[in-house]
Amino acid sequence: MTAIGVDLGGTNVRIALVDTAAETPAVDEIKWAHSSRAPEAVATAIAGTVAALAGPEVPLGIGLAGMLARGTGVVTNAPNLGWQNVDFGALLRARLPGRTIALVNDVGAIALGEGRWGAARGAQSALCVFAGTGIGAGILIDGRLVQGSVGVAAEIGHTKVVIGPGARPCGCGARGCLEAYAGGRLLVERVRAEVPADSTIVALAQGGEPHAGVVDEAARRGDAYALALWDEIAPLFGLALANAVTLLDPQRLVLGGTVLWGAPLLREKVLAAYAELANAPARDACGVVAAHLGDTAGLLGAALAVTASG
Amino acid sequence: MTAIGVDLGGTNVRIALVDTAAETPAVDEIKWAHSSRAPEAVATAIAGTVAALAGPEVPLGIGLAGMLARGTGVVTNAPNLGWQNVDFGALLRARLPGRTIALVNDVGAIALGEGRWGAARGAQSALCVFAGTGIGAGILIDGRLVQGSVGVAAEIGHTKVVIGPGARPCGCGARGCLEAYAGGRLLVERVRAEVPADSTIVALAQGGEPHAGVVDEAARRGDAYALALWDEIAPLFGLALANAVTLLDPQRLVLGGTVLWGAPLLREKVLAAYAELANAPARDACGVVAAHLGDTAGLLGAALAVTASG
Repeated sequence: MTAIGVDLGGTNVRIALVDTAAETPAVDEIKWAHSSRAPEAVATAIAGTVAALAGPEVPLGIGLAGMLARGTGVVTNAPNLGWQNVDFGALLRARLPGRTIALVNDVGAIALGEGRWGAARGAQSALCVFAGTGIGAGILIDGRLVQGSVGVAAEIGHTKVVIGPGARPCGCGARGCLEAYAGGRLLVERVRAEVPADSTIVALAQGGEPHAGVVDEAARRGDAYALALWDEIAPLFGLALANAVTLLDPQRLVLGGTVLWGAPLLREKVLAAYAELANAPARDACGVVAAHLGDTAGLLGAALAVTASG
Repeated sequence: MTAIGVDLGGTNVRIALVDTAAETPAVDEIKWAHSSRAPEAVATAIAGTVAALAGPEVPLGIGLAGMLARGTGVVTNAPNLGWQNVDFGALLRARLPGRTIALVNDVGAIALGEGRWGAARGAQSALCVFAGTGIGAGILIDGRLVQGSVGVAAEIGHTKVVIGPGARPCGCGARGCLEAYAGGRLLVERVRAEVPADSTIVALAQGGEPHAGVVDEAARRGDAYALALWDEIAPLFGLALANAVTLLDPQRLVLGGTVLWGAPLLREKVLAAYAELANAPARDACGVVAAHLGDTAGLLGAALAVTASG
């Protein structure tokens, strides 16, 4: 079957016609940068390209960095696009009459792609966790994305890993979320505010972002601040992964994103904590693997959204 | 459709023929106490009653207090029955040729019953948590029980709520599990070991078990030890519920079991912590309700195991 996948980000739109039955689908993508982020303009640009690619019988799936109200087409909040309560589904339907359209969260789309063609291929169930600027996840069971009753399932980044007055504030308004400790954006902010002037991190960052990769390099060189930071964060990240695996008993745990894959010492410590804290029967049955489709996962996975996102 | 449900506990067996299509199925149960807990004897007793109730075209679902190896019929561990690695499915199949048989965890069976006929009726998805001697749960999505890749999904009792050297030991061999703090058996053990001689708990228990209901009564009378214990445990229980709801975004959170329903002050504190710690969009969409089928939930729900436990 053929479907159209769209990866709608804050900067770019990417569109591809995907053979969802293919063993390894070709990725022949069309990409452009937004000339305007106004919802109507974005919908018009996408609709024009979609209509030129394939007739209305070909379904359209869109993966979007934001929170969606399940089953409504409404984008509740998409900070990178500056959208709040935008009925993007209606804007698209008006421009693409007769076409089946599904919207999913971008990490959900990535999980669908990894599930069909990537690191979770062949698994009955998978938890896919991506730690980049923020921390998101997708849960797959029997090839379908678990979206939750209102579309906010799998928000592992907002599970709490610290409680009490010392818990760090998160971008979501709450405190103690995993993302407040291990999300890339907040991690960089924290390091900038805290790092001692004589830390190896300062020398390595050379005035640039003290991101997870830089902190990790400093920790591997024995920097005390970096090591202490990793020893604080790694058990918390491991805890969140362990509790999610204990609850879901997935066949595979897929890990992606620069915070883990650009920071080998952190990753090693996170996985050690995970192994210690997860319920043993679930942990022993769960393969931990790296995401491996890179930035095509979300584009390909979006094409599955109509059939596999319920 | 008609199916047979069995509730197989450590003391009793209960069997009922269930009209799974009924709005409110009649519960006309047959019940006996084990004369022997030997797997062969239990299988023979169940098979005899099942065969007398209905022909081999009527499927059989069994809810059992223990850990199951999904899809195999093997009971990995059932402490109340004293079974380890018992292929109970094979014992039943040998005695009931041609019949479709499914085994599920007892809390999974309760969740199925509450989902079809009880507190989660009509909900697209539900998390059902039961805190009694231990703490178990069942996850329902689209009317089906999420069993996990090896059958140990929903083990919320073994999600970790405390990490580090001070975490309390759990019966599972790990430390820091929710059950180590809020499971009825370990709670009673702890109170017995810790309670000051002049605590109201001692007077109220009158030499009997200082269970959650007794501690709660003491806390409501202002007993310092009881209040401090509840203020330690409630945020941990609320945390585990909050993180599970954040991850699953269920339409309903069903709470059952004597630890919560026999202890109103604890429950109030747990729910306050839950409301504070859960991801707001998931929490706002999730109705918190009491389990309401009582001890028929597992018997009725077991009858759904063949069709709804995947």
